[in-house]
Amino acid sequence: MPDQPGPDTPRVIRIRPEDNVAIVLNDGGLPAGTELPDGLRLAEAVPQGHKVNLIPFEEGTPIRRYGQMIGTAARAVPAGSWIEESLVRMPAAPSLGSLPLATAVPPPPPPLPGHTFEGYRNADGTAGTRNLLAISTSVQCVAGVVDVAVKRVRETLLPRYPNVDGVVALTHTYGCGVAINAPGAEVPVRTIRNLARNPNFGGAPLVVGLGCEKLAPEWLLAEQGRPAAGAGDAPGIVRLQDPSRQGFGPMVDAIVAAAGKRLEVLDRRRRVTCPAADLVVGVQCGGSDAFSGVTANPVVGFASDLLVRAGATVMFSEVTEVRDAIGMLTPRAASLDVARALVREMAWYDSYLERGEADRSANTTPGNKRGGLANIVEKALGSVVKSGTSAISGVLAPGERVREKGLIFAATPASDFICGTLQLASGMTLHVLTTGRGTPYGLAAVPVLKISSRSELSRRWPDLIDLDAGRVATGEASIEQLGWELFLLMLDIASGRRQSWAEHWGLANELSLFNPGPVT
Amino acid sequence: MPDQPGPDTPRVIRIRPEDNVAIVLNDGGLPAGTELPDGLRLAEAVPQGHKVNLIPFEEGTPIRRYGQMIGTAARAVPAGSWIEESLVRMPAAPSLGSLPLATAVPPPPPPLPGHTFEGYRNADGTAGTRNLLAISTSVQCVAGVVDVAVKRVRETLLPRYPNVDGVVALTHTYGCGVAINAPGAEVPVRTIRNLARNPNFGGAPLVVGLGCEKLAPEWLLAEQGRPAAGAGDAPGIVRLQDPSRQGFGPMVDAIVAAAGKRLEVLDRRRRVTCPAADLVVGVQCGGSDAFSGVTANPVVGFASDLLVRAGATVMFSEVTEVRDAIGMLTPRAASLDVARALVREMAWYDSYLERGEADRSANTTPGNKRGGLANIVEKALGSVVKSGTSAISGVLAPGERVREKGLIFAATPASDFICGTLQLASGMTLHVLTTGRGTPYGLAAVPVLKISSRSELSRRWPDLIDLDAGRVATGEASIEQLGWELFLLMLDIASGRRQSWAEHWGLANELSLFNPGPVT
Repeated sequence: MPDQPGPDTPRVIRIRPEDNVAIVLNDGGLPAGTELPDGLRLAEAVPQGHKVNLIPFEEGTPIRRYGQMIGTAARAVPAGSWIEESLVRMPAAPSLGSLPLATAVPPPPPPLPGHTFEGYRNADGTAGTRNLLAISTSVQCVAGVVDVAVKRVRETLLPRYPNVDGVVALTHTYGCGVAINAPGAEVPVRTIRNLARNPNFGGAPLVVGLGCEKLAPEWLLAEQGRPAAGAGDAPGIVRLQDPSRQGFGPMVDAIVAAAGKRLEVLDRRRRVTCPAADLVVGVQCGGSDAFSGVTANPVVGFASDLLVRAGATVMFSEVTEVRDAIGMLTPRAASLDVARALVREMAWYDSYLERGEADRSANTTPGNKRGGLANIVEKALGSVVKSGTSAISGVLAPGERVREKGLIFAATPASDFICGTLQLASGMTLHVLTTGRGTPYGLAAVPVLKISSRSELSRRWPDLIDLDAGRVATGEASIEQLGWELFLLMLDIASGRRQSWAEHWGLANELSLFNPGPVT
Repeated sequence: MPDQPGPDTPRVIRIRPEDNVAIVLNDGGLPAGTELPDGLRLAEAVPQGHKVNLIPFEEGTPIRRYGQMIGTAARAVPAGSWIEESLVRMPAAPSLGSLPLATAVPPPPPPLPGHTFEGYRNADGTAGTRNLLAISTSVQCVAGVVDVAVKRVRETLLPRYPNVDGVVALTHTYGCGVAINAPGAEVPVRTIRNLARNPNFGGAPLVVGLGCEKLAPEWLLAEQGRPAAGAGDAPGIVRLQDPSRQGFGPMVDAIVAAAGKRLEVLDRRRRVTCPAADLVVGVQCGGSDAFSGVTANPVVGFASDLLVRAGATVMFSEVTEVRDAIGMLTPRAASLDVARALVREMAWYDSYLERGEADRSANTTPGNKRGGLANIVEKALGSVVKSGTSAISGVLAPGERVREKGLIFAATPASDFICGTLQLASGMTLHVLTTGRGTPYGLAAVPVLKISSRSELSRRWPDLIDLDAGRVATGEASIEQLGWELFLLMLDIASGRRQSWAEHWGLANELSLFNPGPVT
């Protein structure tokens, strides 16, 4: 697709033959008067990542990218114009009432056997990519004490357990001062519960509670369907208000002692060879630009297809970045039930945003727009490319634990941190994030692999970007080549043979719960 | 009020002569058959902090505590019964339409001159109680990098600036992935902006931003009315996507360098004698029990009156813990405008909870109930006692900066962390928290002073509780004595002559924003 690379050759990309706009690829954009490869001359300068119209537009001309309408022209402009944001009138979101449901289910792909990673096998059959001690919490009240205890565990205990990769405090701002019986409150509750059961934590959660909170620690240990079988010792609760302890020192001692018992068990674990089918990969994008949908996201989509062929689980998410492309997804649902679940999650979010007097257009950021994305329609069409071409075999409500293999839509907000937290709760063991503008994103609980949509970002952040998908735009590599590169890199990182940059630097963003209910 | 102390003497407390229930004070409660000082025999065992009815109840008898109706009897019970939660039918919240407005404004109290503290004077006239470097952030994306930078600042720079008390990262989960134009979004935006202007940070905020986020760093530096005058150098922004920097190392270096410049300025500051009028004290309660309203909160109320007499600012908060007692507050409003602002904040919260299909009853926790609080009405009546008896001279919407002296109602949710964060944004420089069940609460930005409602908690947590108000219940001290003790302790802690226990141990809870709008 790209033209011959060369720093000064004008380069544009049109995704589908029916598109009437193309994206400028050159670093720094292209000046007015530039002659494009097909002979069209630019009527004005067009920045990198931004759209140029290939035919003259009348007011109301449908603007097509990805073969889809991303809006209509707000006024007439000659061919070769910069189709900037104000020229694109956003269409209404697709109606949810008349979508094609499971009408074009992709056939089962050819299996991809023989790929493995070295993982930590859990009693419940899942496999972790890291061997971490998690200290979960029922309420923010305990967070200060847990921080002190974790610091002590890191300094005094962890060096004695070389097979344990680290300690993660699962602190959050929920638990009390919240309407725990309001509609929607089940989302943060199950998120906190399922976070502690992430496969990277070995199965038996350690919970620190206060004693008077609404979200009692027992709630977090309560079983729901699939048992959270322990890797050895019994689940433990440390309650700070326990009257048998006197003061701050003994509180910290109790947490450290419980952590020590857990570390003993975790330290005896060893990596074993697991089929790639045991991977649970969460994909998302953060700080997208117009390149995301043509370089980084297609590479992720290709790798996602490889993972599905290998029998693994791939979760894609971000309702507001799927909503406008939903008509491309419901036909791919593996069954009517799955298709209806997709529609259910879209409808829930529509109503959630409406209650807050907002809509999906609240999603796009100034950075998205500077990066060439005119609106949420264009952003969504580029975003869903991450899902590849497989059948969609399941849908999760926010924070639900994944129980199926294959391609799963895990409904989440698009906020990087809320999405990441919910994917962790769903059981993700490896996270892939594509970025156009650049974000130093990381998570403490799983390795995060970052893919740049442009080579310029990868050159500027060589020690933060793990894979440069900008090479697709320059013609240095194909989507297929980079998709395979990413697939193999994921297996390496999952096995602990390599670290992602975020892991190397210890970059970890905060957990961020999705609480659709009010606080009190 | 209390009976003669003695470990086995039955002790109960009736707040007002018109009350028909009393509270059992004895540790461990009182057994069935106990004869109370007035001759009544307990029909059954009553736990500590719980209510006993002093007259026989019919179904529908109004139950009175604090001279107010906290509910009606759900069924007939003989005198001397344990009036536990299920026996108390909760009344509807008081109507907001017919409240007495500014009808009983307390006269100006006698001034209390001569009290001072040693504080850090800022260019805008405010005075800090600590000399802290704050690193504010526009978006969660930067939090991982800021954490790394703060660690380096603490380890390598801070030891060279002995007059600076510490470094505080103002990280939060807002900034992007949010509906920034939705109604209510102004709350988190002004909270983040005003947090950076807390008097304890010396005036000139340092902001780390990403570059593509919705909440641009400029928003945080924008003036609103009162200028955020710097203590010396110009406000600074470090943007991680700045193309002049290559990679992670230079990002961290840039933050550390900006922090170093700020530390140079802060280190030259010295404490100066300030009138007590320059104090901005925020009060709240966390983990309340039935003692809170008769011991700890009255002590805080007495100290609050002393502060107001000294010309200082006292903020009380927590809408759902004020709502049912609003009829006792609107008469005390200093003007009709203030009274109407009180009503406005109650009405806003009613509608906020209604949108989320919750109501004020979502406030009480299992711990509150075990502690003897039957419902939110009883909790609220005990909670507002913290406000003392002064006229209410102003009302702040959540996160607004305080501009007046005297007693201020700062509208916030009751969640300890959201309330604390909003009071910090309003300009609090010292925080007082009363607790019955016990919480190890702390904040990084200001000293937090914790007051126990029961002596048992203070004995159990001697290194977390700063003042034992349980001595009011045992008769060891009067409310007046402890109110003065607290007032003088606040001046000592504000001056840095003493540390609160939370500060001593470095206990700091996370900042927690109030975002009434949806996330995207």
